Amino acid sequence: MAELEGNCLIGQSGGPTAVINASIAGAITEALNHECIEEIYGCLNGVLGILNEDLIDLAEESQQTIRALEYTPGSALGTCRHKLKKQQEYERVLEVFKAHNIRYFFYAGGNDSQDTADKISKLAQEQGYELRVIGIPKTIDNDLPVTDHCPGYGSVIKYVATTIREVACDNESMGQHDLVSIVEVMGRSAGWIAAGASLAKRREFPSDPPHLIYLPEVAFSTEKFVEDVQRVLKKEKYCMIVVGEGLVDADGNYVATASSQTDAFGHAQLGGIGDYLKGLVESKVGVKARSARLGIAQRAASHCMSATDAEEAFSAGQAAVKVAVEGVTDKMITILRGESDAYTFETGLAPLSDIANGVKKLPLDWINEDGVSMNFQYVKYAQPLIQGEVEIPHERGLPELARLRKLRVDRLLAAYEG
Amino acid sequence: MAELEGNCLIGQSGGPTAVINASIAGAITEALNHECIEEIYGCLNGVLGILNEDLIDLAEESQQTIRALEYTPGSALGTCRHKLKKQQEYERVLEVFKAHNIRYFFYAGGNDSQDTADKISKLAQEQGYELRVIGIPKTIDNDLPVTDHCPGYGSVIKYVATTIREVACDNESMGQHDLVSIVEVMGRSAGWIAAGASLAKRREFPSDPPHLIYLPEVAFSTEKFVEDVQRVLKKEKYCMIVVGEGLVDADGNYVATASSQTDAFGHAQLGGIGDYLKGLVESKVGVKARSARLGIAQRAASHCMSATDAEEAFSAGQAAVKVAVEGVTDKMITILRGESDAYTFETGLAPLSDIANGVKKLPLDWINEDGVSMNFQYVKYAQPLIQGEVEIPHERGLPELARLRKLRVDRLLAAYEG
Repeated sequence: MAELEGNCLIGQSGGPTAVINASIAGAITEALNHECIEEIYGCLNGVLGILNEDLIDLAEESQQTIRALEYTPGSALGTCRHKLKKQQEYERVLEVFKAHNIRYFFYAGGNDSQDTADKISKLAQEQGYELRVIGIPKTIDNDLPVTDHCPGYGSVIKYVATTIREVACDNESMGQHDLVSIVEVMGRSAGWIAAGASLAKRREFPSDPPHLIYLPEVAFSTEKFVEDVQRVLKKEKYCMIVVGEGLVDADGNYVATASSQTDAFGHAQLGGIGDYLKGLVESKVGVKARSARLGIAQRAASHCMSATDAEEAFSAGQAAVKVAVEGVTDKMITILRGESDAYTFETGLAPLSDIANGVKKLPLDWINEDGVSMNFQYVKYAQPLIQGEVEIPHERGLPELARLRKLRVDRLLAAYEG
Repeated sequence: MAELEGNCLIGQSGGPTAVINASIAGAITEALNHECIEEIYGCLNGVLGILNEDLIDLAEESQQTIRALEYTPGSALGTCRHKLKKQQEYERVLEVFKAHNIRYFFYAGGNDSQDTADKISKLAQEQGYELRVIGIPKTIDNDLPVTDHCPGYGSVIKYVATTIREVACDNESMGQHDLVSIVEVMGRSAGWIAAGASLAKRREFPSDPPHLIYLPEVAFSTEKFVEDVQRVLKKEKYCMIVVGEGLVDADGNYVATASSQTDAFGHAQLGGIGDYLKGLVESKVGVKARSARLGIAQRAASHCMSATDAEEAFSAGQAAVKVAVEGVTDKMITILRGESDAYTFETGLAPLSDIANGVKKLPLDWINEDGVSMNFQYVKYAQPLIQGEVEIPHERGLPELARLRKLRVDRLLAAYEG
């Protein structure tokens, strides 16, 4: 295939992870190796930055900043949840691409973002505009199909499992009294993150916390919940619970809504599912409970990131550029797990349309029959993903994180009136 | 003073911190250096372990375990919130001390624990039983008087400030829309922990998060809150709020109660103060808000502990044993800050009764006039306390924390019938 000369554009979309910027660092680093890539641009806030022609020159960023991206949470380029809807918006994207001679587009995101990338790619083909589009997988939710797992997942479960192991020491030491402790984690439609808490259990000590894990995959029953808590308290004296925010009942309705409803006086009526379970424990089991909600902290906790995850995220960014230069387009980078016992990975490729239309569910046969714990198949799958720690430079006692200079590329088009 | 020969007893009381076990490691390590100390015992769950004669032999623990205590959260000996009340209980404590020839008693805890230690010491003096009692300061709340600060405080604010800096990257990257993000931290009666979040601001960037800090020291007004949030959103596009759980209104009443109230159907009526503020933002400012409650995770987060804090906690444990062997009794170890610009510390002494009856408040003149941020005096005070990171050994991707073997000392007395 003939070499395609032109500029590249990198964007980020959807909720950030601890390692999404590592992917961007990987893509930038690799792009510098290829003479066919002339300018390395970023779009601010995903496709919104393309529509508004808000492009920045990533080659102007210092090498130190690019290195620091590898452990900076958030989406350094800015992100968005905007889904291109109208044909007019897609046309505008291509107009901007043509004006800036964008020939390579790398988009890091989840299902919706890969769908957007796919549609941009197809419109370019229709118009006979040569463009190579490669998606970079990103999501703490681990729900993208085809890929063995998603960059971002290993770090979030390393943080959650670390927190559970630490909180367990605290709870255990209060040991003289019944105490129920609840930690609410993210996961609106799947229990991938809550399942990760099971890694906190040491292999030799089956009664280690977390004692009960409530997953969106298992219909919630108040009666069973009360029995579960009573059983654990009888045996262990304290009970540690992890719950995914998207817990549903037998009818598929959310057990608690995380967004506060307020009455006429502005009083919050309902907290998240953690507070809901706390209420159940106090009213129906009759013992004191405490709840914590890790919230955004869990997807931003780069201080506790997995070295394996960070390496895979960086590699995914690198691979995206490599394959595009070789002529590949309309694909997402995937992570392939090696066959050997010792964990290895390499990157692969999947059609963007396969990613856009699929969801990877937590396999039900990885959940034990009790419905509140994970079996060895899950542990075998997830444990390699949290291996290794990353030493992060600190300034005055806190992580020294990257901020891009964001040097704007001159606009060449009239403002978008969308 | 003549050398006092006998056994020593170490106990922990009140809520754990990330470094309370470092103090225990310091005390054990130092006790091994003194021939006058024969056996090194621990009591399980504080004074409850004394009443029940639940003593363990700490010399039987491996050196590796004692070393690992330095970064293990929770209270490794177990803790309690039991306050000795009846004279009979104090008599029982002395009975157990006499039976096991306890001549040195080291108690790590906050105000109440130092009060207990003081009363035990005084009863021993009345009865002519030679006993040396030294308190070791411990509390994330930083509210003990006399001492410059408390071991445990530096680590909790390092964790909180790290989390705020990370979440800020995430929030900032969502930048196209108004977004309010609330993090609720501990501190029922004082804002010491919430104040620590201010360290997340980089010195050169005054508009860095957290934008608003709500402290129990400043009476909460809904009107001012709404104005504060609107002002920040206008200027920064997003707004990051930190709130101490014990926020009170002008009448001194808690703005929200952290313990769930449930209606007849078991529905939680009210979350903590973070959820309450989220409700206000959504109903009165009209923008989406997210809240997180770090809960027990913040006092257990040894993976993010301050090396300075850990060193001071260890030194406090060591110093307790040293001064007791030299003949000191009825004192608590304090942390004294050096006079020079470069931070240094040494340990000092304060009468237990001075600690038992005092509370150190967050100085009001360290809060800016806006009531929602801290000035340079606070930063100058707090920043040295979070310096340095501790590398913690990991096993299978997670911190490898200590568990004591807890080899029981034979009971010599009849069971306590209290």
